[in-house]
Order: sequence, then C-alpha cells, then structure tokens
Amino acid sequence: MRRIALFLVVAGTAAGVIASFAAGAGRADDQAAPIFGVKIPPGYRDWKLISVTHEEGDFNQLRAQLGNDIAIKAYREGKLPFPDGTIIVALHWTRVPSEEDNKVFGRVQAFVAGSPVNMQVMVKDSKKYAATGGWGFGDFKDGKPSDEAMHKTCFPCHEPAKDQDFVYTRYAP
Amino acid sequence: MRRIALFLVVAGTAAGVIASFAAGAGRADDQAAPIFGVKIPPGYRDWKLISVTHEEGDFNQLRAQLGNDIAIKAYREGKLPFPDGTIIVALHWTRVPSEEDNKVFGRVQAFVAGSPVNMQVMVKDSKKYAATGGWGFGDFKDGKPSDEAMHKTCFPCHEPAKDQDFVYTRYAP
Repeated sequence: MRRIALFLVVAGTAAGVIASFAAGAGRADDQAAPIFGVKIPPGYRDWKLISVTHEEGDFNQLRAQLGNDIAIKAYREGKLPFPDGTIIVALHWTRVPSEEDNKVFGRVQAFVAGSPVNMQVMVKDSKKYAATGGWGFGDFKDGKPSDEAMHKTCFPCHEPAKDQDFVYTRYAP
Repeated sequence: MRRIALFLVVAGTAAGVIASFAAGAGRADDQAAPIFGVKIPPGYRDWKLISVTHEEGDFNQLRAQLGNDIAIKAYREGKLPFPDGTIIVALHWTRVPSEEDNKVFGRVQAFVAGSPVNMQVMVKDSKKYAATGGWGFGDFKDGKPSDEAMHKTCFPCHEPAKDQDFVYTRYAP
C-alpha cells in the first residue's frame, strides 16, 4: 500500500513538472498543430534567449523568445530571411508581482513570470510553407495544439512584419 | 583612403556590437568588480534562461536572468543552497514600445527589450564569499564595473531572500 502511495506521489510530481508548457525541457509533445503540422520542438527550454516582451492590456503577460542554433546565428549575423531550419519559440507566462522583491523596494514594482499561458512556435521551411511566407506556426496550451481557427490567424498577424521576414522579435543585445 | 574609411566603418560596427552589455556573447571583460573581484563571465549570452522580470517605477526595465549549467541544473532539481560554481547573470534593458507589434494590435500594449542598462552577476563560492552568504556580486555598465559604494549595496539587498539562498529569481517553467 505504501508502495502504491509512493508511486502516486512520484507520478503526480512528474505530471506537475511536465505541466509547465506541457512539454518540459527536452520533451516533445507528439500532437501536431493543425494546418501546419508544427510540433513542440524537443529541448526548446534549453535554447538561447532572443529577447523578452511585456504585453499589457488583455494579455498582461511576460514573454521570452528562444531560438535554436540556426535562429540565433541568423539573428547575430543580422541575416534575413531566416534560413530553413530556423525555429523560434515564444513562451508566454502570466505576469505576477514578486512579493519578495517588492518587500525590499517597499512598493509593488517588480513583476515576474508566473504560470505558463501558451507557447508559440515558428518553423522556417521555405518550400513546405511557401504559402505563408516560408513559416509554419504552432500554438500550444498545456502541450496541446490550439484549434484550426486559431491557427488561421497566425500568418495574417505576422504578415505586416514582412520586412523582417514575418518575425516581430528582434535580438536583445 | 577608401581602405582606411572601410576599416573605420568595420571597427565602428565591431565596437557597436560589443557595446551591448559591453562584453558581447562569449567575450569576457577583464575588469573585476570591487570588493568581490567578480568579472563578466565569458559566453554568458549563450546561457539558458531562468526567468524574466518587469521592473516598473524608476526602473522601467525588462530583465532576463540566465544561468550557467550548474545554476540551471540546481534550479531544475530544486536544489538549495546553490552549489559552488553557480553563476547567474541578470541582463537589464530599457523597456520600449514595439511599434510594429502595436500597429497590429491598434494600441500601445507591447513592450520589448531596448538598449542595455546594466548587467549583474552572482557567483557562488561558499568559502571565498563566506561573509556574504557565499555569493560574490558584480554590477557592470558598458562592460565596466560600478564603484565600491554600489557593490556595498548588493548583499544587504539580497539578504532578505535568505530562504532562497539569497537569490530572488525563481525558475520560469
């Protein structure tokens, strides 16, 4: 009985860890996004930082964009368009006050990444995704892809950034 | 003459690139911070992401914290205190509106990392820095360490976070 209880605790903890963006570092989720077939790339949480974003308004999120080695190299060399094989992931968290930090400052001024909201993936394949600027898109919540209607909004939203190869994020020095 | 002009342009560009946090990815600045002797660690810009922060008020900054492999391993395993050899860097940028992003949303709601303000480094060496919780601190602007007075404020500010081994930043899932 104790062995079963222990197993449940361990399984519960493992599930909790995976619950992050639902893939966890180094774990790929097998479910592909509609339209594009994009999946959560394995090991994305180990990728290098491109930049960070604060979205106000309805979002109230802190975000970080990470890139695979091809993405980072292209960013650092200022190379556009991004080469095939580029993958950029955007991690979106709730924006929550840091109690410890604010206690030191004596006022509410520090906000940190809270729980994961969703993650978005852009994959460059100029042939496969020729109809959408060479990019395939994926939006995931709890590791599961959003529906087709959601994925139909990806390219139209990125289209105005055509001069930057449809990518909004710039590399933070 | 043209050759000299070209050289100047190239040199200027290189200086511009280095001007980031004044060390650039993979480049270490040789100047050590007062009191602790902490230097900008080589290659820090390639390190993995710990979390991101938005500081309001007088700061108005976006920040990212990166860790070396020892730091990331300890974070992911929930190990406290951090082992000797842990290095955490905090990159502080101005927080600027993203014009392209806001154009799509039709209102000012997206803010991104602007120019570098300063970077801070925490190095764990429980013997060398025994008097300050095992941590050595470094604050750098344009690659140059801040003065001694500034570095005297590091540990007192981190002291309230004793329960987290004097580190405020938590790992973002």
